[in-house]
Amino acid sequence: MSEWGHAGLTNWGRWGADDERGTFNLLTPALIQQAARLVKTGKTYSLSMPLEAEGPQWPQRHKTWKVTTFNNRPNGMGSADDVVTMHSHSGTHMDALCHVWYDGQLYNGFPAIEHVGSSGATHNSIDKLPFLVGRGVLLDIAAWKGVEYLQLGEAVTADDLDQCAKAQNVTIQPGDMLLLRTGWIRIFRQNRQLYNSGEPGIDESTLPWLKAHDIVAVAADNQAIEVMGELPPPRLPVHAAAIRDLGLYLIENLNLDELSADRIYECLLVIAPLQLTSGIGCPVNPIAIA
Amino acid sequence: MSEWGHAGLTNWGRWGADDERGTFNLLTPALIQQAARLVKTGKTYSLSMPLEAEGPQWPQRHKTWKVTTFNNRPNGMGSADDVVTMHSHSGTHMDALCHVWYDGQLYNGFPAIEHVGSSGATHNSIDKLPFLVGRGVLLDIAAWKGVEYLQLGEAVTADDLDQCAKAQNVTIQPGDMLLLRTGWIRIFRQNRQLYNSGEPGIDESTLPWLKAHDIVAVAADNQAIEVMGELPPPRLPVHAAAIRDLGLYLIENLNLDELSADRIYECLLVIAPLQLTSGIGCPVNPIAIA
Amino acid sequence: MSEWGHAGLTNWGRWGADDERGTFNLLTPALIQQAARLVKTGKTYSLSMPLEAEGPQWPQRHKTWKVTTFNNRPNGMGSADDVVTMHSHSGTHMDALCHVWYDGQLYNGFPAIEHVGSSGATHNSIDKLPFLVGRGVLLDIAAWKGVEYLQLGEAVTADDLDQCAKAQNVTIQPGDMLLLRTGWIRIFRQNRQLYNSGEPGIDESTLPWLKAHDIVAVAADNQAIEVMGELPPPRLPVHAAAIRDLGLYLIENLNLDELSADRIYECLLVIAPLQLTSGIGCPVNPIAIA
Amino acid sequence: MSEWGHAGLTNWGRWGADDERGTFNLLTPALIQQAARLVKTGKTYSLSMPLEAEGPQWPQRHKTWKVTTFNNRPNGMGSADDVVTMHSHSGTHMDALCHVWYDGQLYNGFPAIEHVGSSGATHNSIDKLPFLVGRGVLLDIAAWKGVEYLQLGEAVTADDLDQCAKAQNVTIQPGDMLLLRTGWIRIFRQNRQLYNSGEPGIDESTLPWLKAHDIVAVAADNQAIEVMGELPPPRLPVHAAAIRDLGLYLIENLNLDELSADRIYECLLVIAPLQLTSGIGCPVNPIAIA
Repeated sequence: MSEWGHAGLTNWGRWGADDERGTFNLLTPALIQQAARLVKTGKTYSLSMPLEAEGPQWPQRHKTWKVTTFNNRPNGMGSADDVVTMHSHSGTHMDALCHVWYDGQLYNGFPAIEHVGSSGATHNSIDKLPFLVGRGVLLDIAAWKGVEYLQLGEAVTADDLDQCAKAQNVTIQPGDMLLLRTGWIRIFRQNRQLYNSGEPGIDESTLPWLKAHDIVAVAADNQAIEVMGELPPPRLPVHAAAIRDLGLYLIENLNLDELSADRIYECLLVIAPLQLTSGIGCPVNPIAIA
Repeated sequence: MSEWGHAGLTNWGRWGADDERGTFNLLTPALIQQAARLVKTGKTYSLSMPLEAEGPQWPQRHKTWKVTTFNNRPNGMGSADDVVTMHSHSGTHMDALCHVWYDGQLYNGFPAIEHVGSSGATHNSIDKLPFLVGRGVLLDIAAWKGVEYLQLGEAVTADDLDQCAKAQNVTIQPGDMLLLRTGWIRIFRQNRQLYNSGEPGIDESTLPWLKAHDIVAVAADNQAIEVMGELPPPRLPVHAAAIRDLGLYLIENLNLDELSADRIYECLLVIAPLQLTSGIGCPVNPIAIA
Repeated sequence: MSEWGHAGLTNWGRWGADDERGTFNLLTPALIQQAARLVKTGKTYSLSMPLEAEGPQWPQRHKTWKVTTFNNRPNGMGSADDVVTMHSHSGTHMDALCHVWYDGQLYNGFPAIEHVGSSGATHNSIDKLPFLVGRGVLLDIAAWKGVEYLQLGEAVTADDLDQCAKAQNVTIQPGDMLLLRTGWIRIFRQNRQLYNSGEPGIDESTLPWLKAHDIVAVAADNQAIEVMGELPPPRLPVHAAAIRDLGLYLIENLNLDELSADRIYECLLVIAPLQLTSGIGCPVNPIAIA
Repeated sequence: MSEWGHAGLTNWGRWGADDERGTFNLLTPALIQQAARLVKTGKTYSLSMPLEAEGPQWPQRHKTWKVTTFNNRPNGMGSADDVVTMHSHSGTHMDALCHVWYDGQLYNGFPAIEHVGSSGATHNSIDKLPFLVGRGVLLDIAAWKGVEYLQLGEAVTADDLDQCAKAQNVTIQPGDMLLLRTGWIRIFRQNRQLYNSGEPGIDESTLPWLKAHDIVAVAADNQAIEVMGELPPPRLPVHAAAIRDLGLYLIENLNLDELSADRIYECLLVIAPLQLTSGIGCPVNPIAIA
């Protein structure tokens, strides 16, 4: 086992040798039906940040380009369209299960060299995932800690997750999607350079916790879900284990402030990945219905 | 009044002189809460076609580009990302309320010349719409007519909509989002040239119907919602009136075959537009929960 | 006549009603043969600045994107390619004769509304110009004025051009291409913000001079050839008259420092536009052979 | 030595251990001065094919995208610009010395893994080459063989090069740039599918010939200079040896028909690569002056 693996922390083979969708398999109709029951008032939240050149984004990536074309027809009608050039991992976005690997293997053991190339991924790509729909649980770490935001390099541990859930009077259930609020997206608005130099986030202690609770996805208001003392970081151990070993989805750069303000700790969460053939990820607009 | 307008068919001013979101205003929390009650089994459907170079798309637009970058780090970990260049109106996509205009004015009277330029739209852009969530109603015109698909140039009239709803035992309600199935997307798979030469769809007789029923959106399994005898067509009267006069959303190139096979006539429908700043539209993956 | 025109300053019709190439018509084989005779030592200069995200560019345009793809084949061979997204008017670039217009007409009277659209230009596009080859004459205004660079907003007049040529002992001839050195490109390296806030350059007094001398092209070490007190400027009168009235080529953001250091005042100049179908301009690497 | 190398066929170290420009070093001022003397009439030729979606291009690459933006200002002036997305190896283009490698090493021994990544090449990139200027020699193989074009898979050997030169009464000299005409570009116009399925071109027998004659560059009217029985081909031995071992430039998809029609066998040839920072290649418009 390389430096990246963690004994027993794997979902390989759990849903068959051919599975390319990982924790999506936990989202049964029954679970989704239950999640729909969480809708009490119908108040609905977009959890997306703006998708634009100045939006939140890994600083080593290029900025999103958009140019608009338009015409006015002689018959009096006019129309417009956009041309967009972007990294698929731009703004609020999700990672496909082919996004990272180690020891030459993708989630469920597929060889990276065979399945990832300039034309995209032939296994575990984003279009293999039709949707993420289920119970979203907000763990408002910043509110629980009584701070506006956690500090750069501040780790959120498994124990923090438990205590925060307890304080919020929320019970984590198998198939949950975690909305992890660190408050860090506020730094994006205040100090772009600081936002791009690291972040607070979960550390490796949460990996067994994510596995034990059968969490489907973690979505957070930072760039990489996991704690980083610098950016780019020397290692991304949560990415490595969560995506490649557990087949678990990570969604980044969310705005969770409105949910926090309304103290919405559980909701029907709908994340609808663009069906980008062979893609490694895509921008999304996660929708929480409370 | 120009050739495009229809007497009385307007929502301008209805939600204030500054409104940029049109029929979105009909999607009240109470209505969304009721729509969530429609979830019976939790079975969930992605209504998106693949987003790719060979995906469905207006033939005058360029094909979607995707190139994947990847690296293998000395520490044994590897990662990948994509670069995507696309028209925002590619594949399964939605039109913002700034997409078309006539007589120099956008929805709610904003001057096109002031608000649409190479940098995008400063009014009625796609990022003004946080979500479409509510009751989705499938009108399966092809099934009701007993055909695999309607013919090129075959019009769906207001009377057809009424009769089909009646046959399906569905009552149209204010705030509904229409899922209109013509079967035409099958032609996309069978005969690309035919798909790109016109389509069956709704005609102008449906405009008063859409207004009278306070329909929020029309999503269909064709390129332009409306009937076209040729492509590009000389006129797009449904676009002109629905988007610019009614502030109503059009979503195109959906796959409604699975809903049809399961005879799901009402569902909780979630459409989550990318929050593309000043954008004219965006690809989407509409999610139906039944 | 609008505010843009200048009495008598036009080449419309001079090379036929159908001409789309303007002053290119002055570049006869005999003139090119004479220009080749200017090669004395064979020392050759690239006059291009780097084409990159951080290269010189109109600040309202997006930065150039480049991503590199590569693969290593099982047979031991590897290869790479780039994906580039850019404005055609990026870095060191030239303007096609369709780049600007006024009163609704392009060079030689073609209606802009008919000939410029989202698909490009059907008249006067960059691919109508196969090459610019002829005598290049450096007018080293900064050296003649004894300064490292001219100041923001400092105008170069027709009288300056005459005096500088005289001081350099150079006689301007019909068919010449002007290499105008203001020293301003040094500001690009020292102070990007200043470079993007205006520039020194020629003023409207040079327009009759350009016409009288039958100048084919003006290439300069600034963003827009012409003096600008601010950027974007309220007016671009040299662009309007030179491109649209005279059919004269403008090439921008050159590096003329090496030519200046070697006091090369005349050379064989070769500018080879990319044959970008229906394009409005293109990046170039002008080559001076002395 | 791997399957790719050829004993003695290398220029590594010839121009220093740090050299990144290969045969460019042969283009001395004296040689360029002599080449300028070849200009007899001044007749000038663009050797570029159109750069456009439908232009000649390796079929595995995406098509070139171009979208044009434009505006009409209230002051009566209008202007346009393009957005271009392309592979750098599109249309008539040249390969940088980092384009291919084998056994993990680029030209002059630089490790590929260190110097080629998603951000481009840090050694041997296209911007290290300021220009190619010198004597261009047309070897009109098709004319010499008395055919309109050579056949798919038909090899041009070293002996063919010698005999064609002799028949044309041309003596090959050190520092020459070869313009190799197979007539194959006519197939591009007649039968796109055939053009994209292989080509006639030089075979491995020409590699010692290219080295012995100190050829700087080979430019041809086909996709890959070298003979290919199918496309993509299993091997590209001329690319491997010419670029990686000899540091020799390849320029592809030229139009040499006008030169052939005028029987111009020697000329001043100017190829001006875009100074694309860290780029793997670029489109060019080669200019021949006769």
